[in-house]
Amino acid sequence: MKFQTPRGTRDFLPEDMIRRQYVLDIVRNVFEKWGFDPLETPAFEDWKLLAAKSGGGEEIKKEIYYFKDKSDRELGLRFDLTVPMARVIANNPGLPKPFRRYQIGPVWRYDRPGAGRWREFVQCDVDIVGSSSSEADAIIIATACDCLCELGFSDFIVRINNRKIIEAFLNLLKIKNINDVFRSIDKLEKFGEKIVIDELNEKRIEKNKIKEILEFIKIDNLEKVFNLIKNERKGIEGINEIKEILSTLDKLDFREYIKFDSSLVRGLDYYTGSVFEIVTMDSKLSIGGGGRYDRLIELFGGKPTPATGISLGIDRIVELMKNRNMFNLPKTLTKIFVANVTEKEKDETIKLAKKLIGLGLSTEFDVFGRNLSKQLEYVNSKNIPFTIIIGEKELKNKKIKLRNMKSGEEKEIDINNLEQIKTIVYSRK
Amino acid sequence: MKFQTPRGTRDFLPEDMIRRQYVLDIVRNVFEKWGFDPLETPAFEDWKLLAAKSGGGEEIKKEIYYFKDKSDRELGLRFDLTVPMARVIANNPGLPKPFRRYQIGPVWRYDRPGAGRWREFVQCDVDIVGSSSSEADAIIIATACDCLCELGFSDFIVRINNRKIIEAFLNLLKIKNINDVFRSIDKLEKFGEKIVIDELNEKRIEKNKIKEILEFIKIDNLEKVFNLIKNERKGIEGINEIKEILSTLDKLDFREYIKFDSSLVRGLDYYTGSVFEIVTMDSKLSIGGGGRYDRLIELFGGKPTPATGISLGIDRIVELMKNRNMFNLPKTLTKIFVANVTEKEKDETIKLAKKLIGLGLSTEFDVFGRNLSKQLEYVNSKNIPFTIIIGEKELKNKKIKLRNMKSGEEKEIDINNLEQIKTIVYSRK
Repeated sequence: MKFQTPRGTRDFLPEDMIRRQYVLDIVRNVFEKWGFDPLETPAFEDWKLLAAKSGGGEEIKKEIYYFKDKSDRELGLRFDLTVPMARVIANNPGLPKPFRRYQIGPVWRYDRPGAGRWREFVQCDVDIVGSSSSEADAIIIATACDCLCELGFSDFIVRINNRKIIEAFLNLLKIKNINDVFRSIDKLEKFGEKIVIDELNEKRIEKNKIKEILEFIKIDNLEKVFNLIKNERKGIEGINEIKEILSTLDKLDFREYIKFDSSLVRGLDYYTGSVFEIVTMDSKLSIGGGGRYDRLIELFGGKPTPATGISLGIDRIVELMKNRNMFNLPKTLTKIFVANVTEKEKDETIKLAKKLIGLGLSTEFDVFGRNLSKQLEYVNSKNIPFTIIIGEKELKNKKIKLRNMKSGEEKEIDINNLEQIKTIVYSRK
Repeated sequence: MKFQTPRGTRDFLPEDMIRRQYVLDIVRNVFEKWGFDPLETPAFEDWKLLAAKSGGGEEIKKEIYYFKDKSDRELGLRFDLTVPMARVIANNPGLPKPFRRYQIGPVWRYDRPGAGRWREFVQCDVDIVGSSSSEADAIIIATACDCLCELGFSDFIVRINNRKIIEAFLNLLKIKNINDVFRSIDKLEKFGEKIVIDELNEKRIEKNKIKEILEFIKIDNLEKVFNLIKNERKGIEGINEIKEILSTLDKLDFREYIKFDSSLVRGLDYYTGSVFEIVTMDSKLSIGGGGRYDRLIELFGGKPTPATGISLGIDRIVELMKNRNMFNLPKTLTKIFVANVTEKEKDETIKLAKKLIGLGLSTEFDVFGRNLSKQLEYVNSKNIPFTIIIGEKELKNKKIKLRNMKSGEEKEIDINNLEQIKTIVYSRK
């Protein structure tokens, strides 16, 4: 009987995993440089936490994998890393503030699988909890930008907006069901204007107001927006927050990547202020996003605690980098295969391999009793970059040859001077 | 409303996560040195795969988190990393053999939570697929031993046995339901002899045979075992396999950690030959285990493919290391806090922080508009090891002071020579 991976999920074979780990290692390193400490939470949570109106809200609720454990506890797989983190903060009020954490891990959403859309995907999150300062938002954005730069991207854009701005405009239009409108606007990028209009119609927004909303969210200029909402205190607050973020990002050297976009709202209900989303020139799919969620932690029983964060979508980033040929990675992490000419040299082959492993060199030897040419076939099929062949002569002379499998180059090495191999292996282009 | 983590699961706050990552980084590094490439599979699988008799078998079935997705597909959270890997092999027959992979990730079992027993825990697996040679088993065991040595353990024991040996003995006793007997014997270490006897009684094994079985599994000497089963071809095969493993482990320098133990069978039904389990002197809990499972892949629709592997239980290893004070790690990964004396120096503070981050130094600055003493309170509450205070004087003289918060030592540094800071920060004891 054959079994496939469940719909919307994937296996990652070594060649793919080597790419993913390369990306994750860089992201983790950048997160740590920017002063974030690691946090981890369980894969599943109390269903009520995930389904709370204050959590994912109505939209995401439909996408949560729900189940009961054998004691009938209602559980769900986490759909993001923000909600679990907010729970941690609510339950641990004594943590020093700002609490700056990163978390890297899979999340699950029962979404329709498609290009760049999986039911299991990895999020890489940084959040700063406790500070309402726009400097915190700026650090969050800068950290995400730094990740993308370190990965080799230069053409990304961080769209930025503040929910308070549209809220102010909707107030001026005397519209009450603001979160409903947000959820429709969020579909603009993905599904186009017609869907947004249809939805707003359904939500009983008057036709002329729908027109005004659609015009408003086309504005890409902060001053124009200011003129339209200058009588709404909250809206001005939102504009000032964006200005402060931009000013701090200027000092942090990432201003050039940021673009104001009044149509950006983000889909999750928990956002309260600034929101951000990262896109590249060649893909409409967001590769990261986040924002400020100042009320989430108190809604989970914590003290009122402002917070802001961003999430990078590693699956889409890896896909994009693959498509753009941004990877230059080996197909295997194994560096050296030590081959034995006959069974007689096997013991010494094993001992030599162990020495190389002891030096930190990733090494294999034959475990099939294969003859030399079959061993070399394996080396080639797996693209192992170096081989050492151990025969009678090598053992007698205590000298071995390290062969670069790509260039064919051979280098003779004294068996008592194996350290030398490290230099050669790591200088390989 | 407050929410707790689901029963049997835990959050890992930064101090704990820093320890876990330290352990995982070492394990991953050792895995890669020994020639294993990374693989990843989804968190959940087709229920039928997990529940297959050939997979976990009856015992584990009760412990699987089962659920249906919104299209009524029956799924389950993986309970180990071996079954998913066997599925990958069955579905990708073209992978070069030996296929050597490692996988590090959480697994879930609905077990009774208790000391060292969680419902979500992380397994670190290495497996060699395609080779039936005992050298493969030896590499697997050596890799696990090397992990433990690198983590600082020296008192661990790898118990080793071969199912073929007990099978031979049970054949001599004319016992048919061998897997049932295995499952009872597996409970010896955990629940004691009485439970095993009761269970074997229930399974209708005759009293005198139970006595013989219990005596047999007390033998810790390969020669004695040999004398009892020397007429059973399969049993001799098992003994020879153990001998070959020991001989290879001798060449790989890990022989001293291995101990033959005829009572070891392991709980999962898929094992077919050698089995291993790692314990330490001070804990009865296994911190690792594995064995040979030569039939699993064909049962999942693949070609007949021998395979062997081991799994380290990172949660228990971290607990053990904590209890033994084996960690010497900081409470935060942040290395430097750049404090500003007044708001006037804030811009320059941010720019300096960015420069330090650019050098790879994990750096924070204030995001609260706090005064200097409050900033330093935060530094102390979080145990950040170094501080730089930026005031009017520092900006004028273009010289800053790096203060070691533990020793109180201060070092003056030219603002154009920040590289120096790296040396000081990383040489800290």
